[in-house]
Amino acid sequence: MTKKNEPLARLDGKLTMIGFGSIGQALLPLLFRHFGLKPADVKIVKPGEDRSGLARELGVEVIPVRLEEGNFAAVLEPLVDKGDFLINLSVDVSSLALVKLCRERGALYLDTCNEPWGGRYDDPGLPPSRRSNYSLREEVLAWRLDKRSGPTAVITQGANPGLVSALLKQALLNIAADTHAELEAMPASYEDWAALAQQLGIKVVHIAERDTQVAKARKQRGEFVNTWSVRGFVDEGLQPAELGWGTHERHWPADAARHGFGSDAAIYLKRPGIGTRVRSWTPLEGPYHGFLVTHAESISIADHLTLRKDGQVVYRPTVHYAYHPSDDAVLSLHEMAGKNWQLQHRQRIVRDEIAEGMDELGVLLMGNPKGAYWYGSRLTIEQARELAPANSATSLQVVAGILGGMSWALCHPDAGLVEPDDLDHRVMLEAAMPYLGEVAGVYGDWTPLKERSPLFDEEKDEDDPWQFLNFRVA
Amino acid sequence: MTKKNEPLARLDGKLTMIGFGSIGQALLPLLFRHFGLKPADVKIVKPGEDRSGLARELGVEVIPVRLEEGNFAAVLEPLVDKGDFLINLSVDVSSLALVKLCRERGALYLDTCNEPWGGRYDDPGLPPSRRSNYSLREEVLAWRLDKRSGPTAVITQGANPGLVSALLKQALLNIAADTHAELEAMPASYEDWAALAQQLGIKVVHIAERDTQVAKARKQRGEFVNTWSVRGFVDEGLQPAELGWGTHERHWPADAARHGFGSDAAIYLKRPGIGTRVRSWTPLEGPYHGFLVTHAESISIADHLTLRKDGQVVYRPTVHYAYHPSDDAVLSLHEMAGKNWQLQHRQRIVRDEIAEGMDELGVLLMGNPKGAYWYGSRLTIEQARELAPANSATSLQVVAGILGGMSWALCHPDAGLVEPDDLDHRVMLEAAMPYLGEVAGVYGDWTPLKERSPLFDEEKDEDDPWQFLNFRVA
Ligand SMILES: NC(=O)c1ccc[n+]([C@@H]2O[C@H](COP(=O)([O-])OP(=O)(O)OC[C@H]3O[C@@H](n4cnc5c(N)ncnc54)[C@H](O)[C@@H]3O)[C@@H](O)[C@H]2O)c1
Ligand SMILES: NC(=O)c1ccc[n+]([C@@H]2O[C@H](COP(=O)([O-])OP(=O)(O)OC[C@H]3O[C@@H](n4cnc5c(N)ncnc54)[C@H](O)[C@@H]3O)[C@@H](O)[C@H]2O)c1
Repeated sequence: MTKKNEPLARLDGKLTMIGFGSIGQALLPLLFRHFGLKPADVKIVKPGEDRSGLARELGVEVIPVRLEEGNFAAVLEPLVDKGDFLINLSVDVSSLALVKLCRERGALYLDTCNEPWGGRYDDPGLPPSRRSNYSLREEVLAWRLDKRSGPTAVITQGANPGLVSALLKQALLNIAADTHAELEAMPASYEDWAALAQQLGIKVVHIAERDTQVAKARKQRGEFVNTWSVRGFVDEGLQPAELGWGTHERHWPADAARHGFGSDAAIYLKRPGIGTRVRSWTPLEGPYHGFLVTHAESISIADHLTLRKDGQVVYRPTVHYAYHPSDDAVLSLHEMAGKNWQLQHRQRIVRDEIAEGMDELGVLLMGNPKGAYWYGSRLTIEQARELAPANSATSLQVVAGILGGMSWALCHPDAGLVEPDDLDHRVMLEAAMPYLGEVAGVYGDWTPLKERSPLFDEEKDEDDPWQFLNFRVA
Repeated sequence: MTKKNEPLARLDGKLTMIGFGSIGQALLPLLFRHFGLKPADVKIVKPGEDRSGLARELGVEVIPVRLEEGNFAAVLEPLVDKGDFLINLSVDVSSLALVKLCRERGALYLDTCNEPWGGRYDDPGLPPSRRSNYSLREEVLAWRLDKRSGPTAVITQGANPGLVSALLKQALLNIAADTHAELEAMPASYEDWAALAQQLGIKVVHIAERDTQVAKARKQRGEFVNTWSVRGFVDEGLQPAELGWGTHERHWPADAARHGFGSDAAIYLKRPGIGTRVRSWTPLEGPYHGFLVTHAESISIADHLTLRKDGQVVYRPTVHYAYHPSDDAVLSLHEMAGKNWQLQHRQRIVRDEIAEGMDELGVLLMGNPKGAYWYGSRLTIEQARELAPANSATSLQVVAGILGGMSWALCHPDAGLVEPDDLDHRVMLEAAMPYLGEVAGVYGDWTPLKERSPLFDEEKDEDDPWQFLNFRVA
């Protein structure tokens, strides 16, 4: 396993980072640690000066520009050339536009979220389908169709989306080993992985995350507190709730819709993810209500784990996020919901003021007779601080995914546009492991029907605990 | 107005208090202040010793007994005699059983919640209607039918239920004055009040409460934190959501039911109140999501404000609670919901450790053209501490209601069983006012349709903002 201070890969060109918020700051020191870069090799593009002081402290130049559709090419072309690396850690800057630019310039690219230009997520003039991650992904896939090679662009490679695609593959292998399932060789294609998931009886996959980090100072009235981007969270939280839709599902949600184009691997609900609760489980939290916030991995994992026979879909798990953000973020959402999703004026991303807590982030695989299997990272704030400066547990898990994605891209510089599911999970995990704290795999007998309150009748399907109907909180 | 240290009425007999939790402790010192009682005149009955130390400090004897159906008469008969006062501030002790005992003994009675014997609220073998406050009230009213006089028993007279019935009457008078409505004389009967409410166009009444009190120490995992009884809150929170059902309502909720007996003033939803969110508004909080927790006042106010013509109901407002408990209580509910309403093992009622905040508790009257009118108490923790020992803002508002109820009972000792709506609101407010902090009446242009997010379609009735459909959070 890579040690924390070992170089992962060598970047000989320059690196430009767009955005320098909670993730950008968290990544910067590790760029020097792992990729043989020197401060002069790195530039940061963001609107306004860096108020964190970290860029100056590390000797990195900040170019204080807000990228927009009209200026991004002019700003970036002088910075991004053949062999260079563009890392996009901003909000409101179109991933596809940057990918195209990098392709023209011959540069590598990575982001942690497939973003559109600002104003699309919350344009009520657009139908929900157009505001979905599904449609953003389909636009990227459509563009990729005739370009299977070229400068590598890794999209949506953070923790989730990102690392969780690797955790999922490892989790499938772990269940196979633990249940002595027949496995002739390491799966090598999507179909192999899908066949393995089917063989193991996996019907549902959650990205099951419980963030218990809390700062000393409580959330104040009119304030949104989060452990990572408030804007990023609110943007995705107000997109429609989206989920990969499994072949075992028998109850079509009354508020659901299909997109009518593209892979058809996922559906959306006509409501925001931060207004949609689902039952889930992590080993340390136990059962909890999480928010069904849309994420790229809900769609890409479901798509990649689809099996077809004679053109018909015969297997696909249901896949979605079940996010229990930090307590102050839960309260922030509650307040925001009460104000019809008007974002609070004050926003606070906590990091150095975090007093305690951990981010328990993993994949939860359900359907195998051995029980629900959670596999993931338990990273405490103390561990995160010991492992890297300028991090919380949340940001370091994201950075762990980025490191894997970057080193993969540097070793495969002509792979074209790839998603986390396209990457070798062993490379990802090797790069990430030193930063994940305890990585645990735990079986539980939890199901969404377990120990339901007998006080009120609820609509449920007792015949199959793994129906989405049973997960959803009515 | 009564000054804070003035005697309210004289109690010449003895006083027995059942229960000595957050409300009992809050009331005890004020008994001496306002009713000419001495420590030797008061006894407390509760299970186990008083661990707060307050009873000993004030020189009051504690009789350490858990009252049950089988022992309550034997325990209480030696303590309760003609001219005495029994104050019930416990949970799980039947109000009706105590009322009957007091009637036999010739003693006065008051409680702040119409409680059944333990085990009824959460008996899944009982249909929801039997677990409702509606049915508890109907049982009391049925018993009262042939006993219109006799020793006064004031039931459900705390803050809410209790004081809010008086605030509502004053609010009606305030709106009448502010809108120059014709008002020939002070309303003297239920019909008069109902006619006034109808005349003013009131369609909906919320008990709109936002508690912002927070302790220094945050809620821990597996802990329920509240500013008053955790047991009391969870008990009522797991009863069906109940609301007085107004004559203007045009949309029957899919999960609603009528009881099929009694006044028919209220309906219930087949789900717990702490799982049911509604939109509401207070002047300081602005719009918020509250919990539609069942309360006696939702039913009694709706019943008392009903107008009939030729036996047909022609007017009734919709009445319910919209409770935004303290932030840590919101988080406690969220955690508990995630665990299928299994109550956390650890419970903490905060009082002396509260660091800041206020209880903003009032009635919100909607439908008058001048706008939504909130009238109520804004009591900060600092004010509460200055006004009385052993209190939070929440408990002192409850005590304020109790003081009014007790003094009314002492002045009207032969009124039989009465509800808050039966009491003279002027007497109530005069007794309570010194303890309510700022009492404010504020108009707002808020409606549950105001500034809805345009991002997703929601089922709503644009023709009448005051439909329950528009208040309910789907
Ligand atoms: N995949 C994952 O696991 C994961 C996790 C966390 C965050 N993210 C994503 O990473 C991105 C960054 O997150 P964060 O927490 O650092 O966000 P942040 O809000 O803390 O920082 C965003 C940064 O982008 C900059 N920015 C905003 N608009 C810009 C523009 N037009 N041009 C250039 N820069 C601009 C801001 O100034 C800021 O420096 C977001 O897209 C977020 O969704 C992904
Ligand atoms: N109307 C209102 O505004 C209002 C507001 C707050 C509380 N309340 C009600 O007041 C009551 C007391 O509230 P609290 O916050 O003081 O509750 P608490 O939980 O703090 O205290 C309850 C007390 O009752 C005692 N008790 C429990 N079971 C008993 C039994 N079988 N026999 C005798 N005593 C018993 C407990 O030992 C404790 O002393 C509850 O019914 C609550 O619903 C009403």
